[in-house]
Amino acid sequence: MKRNFLKTGVISLYVAGLALVAAGMTACCNSGCKADGQNTAEAVLANIANRKSVRHFVEGKEVSKADLETLVKAGMAAPTARNSQPWEFYIVSTPEGKQALVDGLPYAKMLAQASAAIVVCGNAEYMLDGEGREYWVQDCSAATENILLAAEAMGLGAVWTGVYPVRERVKFVQEALSLPSTHLPLCVIPVGYPTGEDQPKDKYKADRIYWK
Amino acid sequence: MKRNFLKTGVISLYVAGLALVAAGMTACCNSGCKADGQNTAEAVLANIANRKSVRHFVEGKEVSKADLETLVKAGMAAPTARNSQPWEFYIVSTPEGKQALVDGLPYAKMLAQASAAIVVCGNAEYMLDGEGREYWVQDCSAATENILLAAEAMGLGAVWTGVYPVRERVKFVQEALSLPSTHLPLCVIPVGYPTGEDQPKDKYKADRIYWK
Repeated sequence: MKRNFLKTGVISLYVAGLALVAAGMTACCNSGCKADGQNTAEAVLANIANRKSVRHFVEGKEVSKADLETLVKAGMAAPTARNSQPWEFYIVSTPEGKQALVDGLPYAKMLAQASAAIVVCGNAEYMLDGEGREYWVQDCSAATENILLAAEAMGLGAVWTGVYPVRERVKFVQEALSLPSTHLPLCVIPVGYPTGEDQPKDKYKADRIYWK
Repeated sequence: MKRNFLKTGVISLYVAGLALVAAGMTACCNSGCKADGQNTAEAVLANIANRKSVRHFVEGKEVSKADLETLVKAGMAAPTARNSQPWEFYIVSTPEGKQALVDGLPYAKMLAQASAAIVVCGNAEYMLDGEGREYWVQDCSAATENILLAAEAMGLGAVWTGVYPVRERVKFVQEALSLPSTHLPLCVIPVGYPTGEDQPKDKYKADRIYWK
């Protein structure tokens, strides 16, 4: 009788233990984790909201080549007009390369403290004809936004500093990096580890939405 | 003696149960869940890679107003030149509004099956002066990419159909939606629930990267 009681007790507790494992997994996945579609959406939307223009970097902390390539890979996942993919990506990580850019770009001075810069360029050889030629700007802008969002997600900091269509800046970057004349720099993106000083802005304005 | 054995057994199994809860949570969080920074990065990067141009929608399945607003909210989180936020967002969800757009946009025919369209516009009143005026295109393109990425994350489908700078299309959309002349439509984004026919493209090309 007592042995039966013991056995029943052991089995009950074993079943209870399994139930607790399941409870643990459920509790975990419903709180901080991102196992299902809903939580993936939350993670992506939070990342979009948390992206900030990072202008203060931890000096001397290098972003790995692999991480810089991951950023550019995210850039190349952007949509392009008629799938033209009219882009080229320069990763400037040498001290000389960075200094050459800093010297002539008043709005990109923070690059001196950054680990590298990604220069997103359009390539005239892949641009569409006629009025659609300027779609390369939109394509490369989408690629730039992908890079900024990927950086935010990876714990890196980045900031979009404009080049095109300001002619003087385009000419300067082309000369500083010895670009072929067909490669038109759209922007320079300093990348590094953020100090934490820069914070996201809430720019939502309900009155910019119209229902039709 | 037997009572002591029983008591010890109960306590041991209780402790074992707690250990199993912890094991369950650890197993969960280390596999499919996105609890930490590394997994958030994976979720965001996967979403960027998985975003596709969705041109096939489940007919009659409506995207809620709240979800459409969430998409636009993601758009407004994009960076803009000198924080000018030079944008306006039209959400076209009535049958008449959608039909008015479909009638004149050969590349946006899929809108007939979509639930709604988001029309991203620049507002001339907020654009910068001089050569920097055209930065609004880049700002609104970044907003558009945010919208596409948010849609992908939320299980929705969307596609960027170009309007600006093709003059005929700009004029057509302005007239179809009775826009003020200061609101310049950059693109029309049909949004709906994807049928699953459209798949992402791998556009990564290592030879588009240059190290400097």
